[in-house]
Amino acid sequence: MNYKEFENCSVNLFFRIFSGKWKPLILHHFFYTGDERFIELWRKMPKVSKKVLLEQLKEMENDGIVVRKQVNTFPPEVYYGLSETGKSLEQLLLHIESWMENYQVQHTTGLDPMKEKQK
Amino acid sequence: MNYKEFENCSVNLFFRIFSGKWKPLILHHFFYTGDERFIELWRKMPKVSKKVLLEQLKEMENDGIVVRKQVNTFPPEVYYGLSETGKSLEQLLLHIESWMENYQVQHTTGLDPMKEKQK
Repeated sequence: MNYKEFENCSVNLFFRIFSGKWKPLILHHFFYTGDERFIELWRKMPKVSKKVLLEQLKEMENDGIVVRKQVNTFPPEVYYGLSETGKSLEQLLLHIESWMENYQVQHTTGLDPMKEKQK
Repeated sequence: MNYKEFENCSVNLFFRIFSGKWKPLILHHFFYTGDERFIELWRKMPKVSKKVLLEQLKEMENDGIVVRKQVNTFPPEVYYGLSETGKSLEQLLLHIESWMENYQVQHTTGLDPMKEKQK
C-alpha cells in the first residue's frame, strides 16, 4: 500500500473523522438528547472550553456529521444536532459498543483514555 | 455525563485505542497478510520510522490487539500479528468500511486525512 492508498483507506479516514477528543461525547450527546442549543451542550460537557467545543462542532459540520441551525429570534439562538449522515451512524455505534463490551470484559487496559496519543 | 462517565464511555475508549496515526493501516495490513516480521512490515509501510512503528505496535500490544512473537533462531526473529481480540474486529471493520462507502459517496470532505487534528 502506498501513501496515496493509505490516505484514501476508508478505515483510516473514519478514525480521522471521529478521533477529536470530544467528538465521541458530542455524538453520544446528540444521540441521547437530540438537537441542543450551543450553550446547553457546553454546560453538559465536562471540562471543555467554549472555543474548543465550537472547533470540534465546526469540524464535524465540515465533515457532514453535524448541522448548525440558527433560529432568528432576538437574540438569535444557535442549535446543533446530527445531520442525516450523522444519524446514519447509529447502527455502527451500537456495533462499536457491543464489541467494546466484550473487549472490556477480556482486558483491563492500562490505557488512560484522556491521555493524548503521541502519534 | 460527568468526567468519570466520559472516561469510561466505550465509544470514546474505542476511538482512543485505534486513533494512532498508523494503527488503522497496521490493522489493515495484518488482516490482509497475516503475521509479519517487523522488518517486512516496516518496509511495506509508507513514510514511517522504525521507532514510531514500534511504538504504535507496542501500544496495540498493551491494548491486547496485537501479539509479538519471538522465534528463537539465530539471530532471533520477531513477528507481529493480531491477537484473538484483534481478529474479532473483522466484522466491525467491515461495518466501518461499508458506512464509509456511503459516506464518501455523499460527501467530498475537505478533510486532509494526514493532517493531525488539533484537539
